[in-house]
Amino acid sequence: MDKLYKGLKPSRRNFLRGAAATGVAAFGGAQAARAQGAPDPAITEIKPWMQYLGDGVDARPYGMPSPYEAHVRRQNVEWLTADPVSSVNFTPLHELDGIITPNGLCFERHHAGIAEVDPAEHRLMINGLVDRPLVFTMEDLMRFPRENHVYFLECAANTGMEWAGAQLNGCQFTHGMIHNVMYTGVPLRLVLEEAGVRTNAAWILPEGADASGMTRSIPMEKALDDCLVAFKMNGEALRPEQGYPVRLVVPGWEGNMWVKWLRRIEVGDQPWHHREETSKYTDLLADGQARRFTWEMDAKSVITNPSPQAPITHGPGPMTLTGVAWSGRGTIPRVDVTLDGGANWHQARMSGPSLMKSMHRFYYDFEWDGRPMLLQSRAHDSTGYVQPTKDQLRQVRGENSIYHNNGIQTWAVNENGEAENVEIS
Amino acid sequence: MDKLYKGLKPSRRNFLRGAAATGVAAFGGAQAARAQGAPDPAITEIKPWMQYLGDGVDARPYGMPSPYEAHVRRQNVEWLTADPVSSVNFTPLHELDGIITPNGLCFERHHAGIAEVDPAEHRLMINGLVDRPLVFTMEDLMRFPRENHVYFLECAANTGMEWAGAQLNGCQFTHGMIHNVMYTGVPLRLVLEEAGVRTNAAWILPEGADASGMTRSIPMEKALDDCLVAFKMNGEALRPEQGYPVRLVVPGWEGNMWVKWLRRIEVGDQPWHHREETSKYTDLLADGQARRFTWEMDAKSVITNPSPQAPITHGPGPMTLTGVAWSGRGTIPRVDVTLDGGANWHQARMSGPSLMKSMHRFYYDFEWDGRPMLLQSRAHDSTGYVQPTKDQLRQVRGENSIYHNNGIQTWAVNENGEAENVEIS
Repeated sequence: MDKLYKGLKPSRRNFLRGAAATGVAAFGGAQAARAQGAPDPAITEIKPWMQYLGDGVDARPYGMPSPYEAHVRRQNVEWLTADPVSSVNFTPLHELDGIITPNGLCFERHHAGIAEVDPAEHRLMINGLVDRPLVFTMEDLMRFPRENHVYFLECAANTGMEWAGAQLNGCQFTHGMIHNVMYTGVPLRLVLEEAGVRTNAAWILPEGADASGMTRSIPMEKALDDCLVAFKMNGEALRPEQGYPVRLVVPGWEGNMWVKWLRRIEVGDQPWHHREETSKYTDLLADGQARRFTWEMDAKSVITNPSPQAPITHGPGPMTLTGVAWSGRGTIPRVDVTLDGGANWHQARMSGPSLMKSMHRFYYDFEWDGRPMLLQSRAHDSTGYVQPTKDQLRQVRGENSIYHNNGIQTWAVNENGEAENVEIS
Repeated sequence: MDKLYKGLKPSRRNFLRGAAATGVAAFGGAQAARAQGAPDPAITEIKPWMQYLGDGVDARPYGMPSPYEAHVRRQNVEWLTADPVSSVNFTPLHELDGIITPNGLCFERHHAGIAEVDPAEHRLMINGLVDRPLVFTMEDLMRFPRENHVYFLECAANTGMEWAGAQLNGCQFTHGMIHNVMYTGVPLRLVLEEAGVRTNAAWILPEGADASGMTRSIPMEKALDDCLVAFKMNGEALRPEQGYPVRLVVPGWEGNMWVKWLRRIEVGDQPWHHREETSKYTDLLADGQARRFTWEMDAKSVITNPSPQAPITHGPGPMTLTGVAWSGRGTIPRVDVTLDGGANWHQARMSGPSLMKSMHRFYYDFEWDGRPMLLQSRAHDSTGYVQPTKDQLRQVRGENSIYHNNGIQTWAVNENGEAENVEIS
């Protein structure tokens, strides 16, 4: 990727639609071995790792990726925010597959840097409109019945720069404010029931223990539905940058509500209208009015390979295109893919568990004719909703917005396999 | 845990069965806050992490666990093998929850240490009884259609020390030669079809690229069924200790067949009877005969909390017991739990996805009366098979064996909540 940022001005380009497919190459680039008994030198050559005894089982109490994978990392964008302690970095979606995001690569968003909380000193308080205000240690929380669920967490601002046209050259930057892990936690309902929610209670206000003291108002109906007080992700303790030792999980809803380093939940009868739900995380429309409380993350998808950071590095012939799709309202039974900017749509192949409010993985296996392509994906969710185009969103919401851009993404692939972020109309 | 190893002699003890439950304590240990407006000092105290700006989003391109979790690590047992380069370490099951094992904590077993393979230099060859011997680069493999599946990998020797009675004091050591991750890979069937398997082909021999050149014979029926040529685990590249850049996945079958650093697959008409399927990985019976080709891992379960490394640290009252169960033959629809050494069995609560040949998580939520317990779990798999006792296994297989011990595990918990590995008869 030689150019991350394409300039602040919109760059909506029109691309020639792809022409008919040419002759089909043999599968993959595999070379036929010369003959049985006289195989290719590439396989008979003695490699260094065939000749030494490597690290033993006492060397790596906690393992790390291969040094050859050092390029697979979260990245931030320096010009995006004033300071990295109140900023975001991005999950390298183009380097991942399946539906699980490994903990070390889950994007980070924090408002006062990473709090390094001592779990023995940490407490969670429930107060406000409850019969019995309570203070829990971590051990107390572990005594409640707990559950396991795979959920995506997406920042409301994911893809936000793209409202103004094709901006960021790589799905890590256009769509990487998302991760998808298995959480273990206690249903928030059980914790609230222990405190005894009063009949006039209608909202909760979770509060974080970091220096930013993050708060968001959440309606009681959601709190009692599927929210979790979570302490594990992908089997192990939450990572510090994801709220260790305990965070709120608010399935399908925008990421800033999933309060990290959770220290307090206040129960009230109306929303608080704090900073992060008024001056931020509201959607300014063209007429100057703002939408507030736009909690759900609508169905969305993106092709992760090929993409600007992950060009095609082989010639024409068989190949697999892949991407991810998700919806805050259910599952993703279907994704469509086009190679020609929407002239023809093909149903993608889904692979992996289809779970509520979780990322889904799709593939499209095809013969590339070696000509330019305009790649798009379009998610359908289990409510029947279909992912819109960016222009359809702009017609309704204008271009002032930062949040909730779930429009269809286009990558233009040239005859060399290089991909670029573009818009077509 | 003050004592890992309890001595080589069997220690089958008889424990008094637990008496009737006493009075039930209030839920958890949560303290009622003094009053609304005057909460507990534990929550009003200003903690250090509320006062500083922590690390920003540019500080950790690849994240790591909190320093407070440094005790959560793979561990080996020095006396178990002659040298750590041909040895095993163990997954800390008692520190994990849910069904996903994080990549950094997946147990390791290698025969010549960890090979550090350069993926650009690595090749996979298919030869033998095929129409067209082929050599694939990693890029070639990525052009095949791929799939995602969560599978457990269990070493055939897991729980092997327990044939001789209660030996190792902790589920990490008795049951920790297992991990459970989401794999992304190409169905082996597609790779073999590309080479063209001849009509007389009946077996394959996968071979590793490390200095041990690990090989195992696998029948063609399994190769064409659900085996994967896998390059990703939990979304990211395989870890070096798990075969980076490519390993074989043999769902439900013993771990040593899942050849790592996969460099070659030979196709033949009969098994090869190499070292690791004759002198090792065969099950010596009491009469001196050995079972060979005992590939499938039978249904098994273990309670991970409480357990010797994870005692109960609170008093009587509500608590949650948890553990894992798995079967190489299908799913786990049901696990039973007993608190009194089998006098009374209770159906456990399953939570999390129930996937073929994957680990399952179970919980049992109960009121602890503060008296000693004899904890056991018993898995049922989707074929109707029920996990046997260790004595039932010994009656059939004797005590010479090292492999395939899937007997019911017992933890004796005393009135202080401390747990010990015991056997009851």
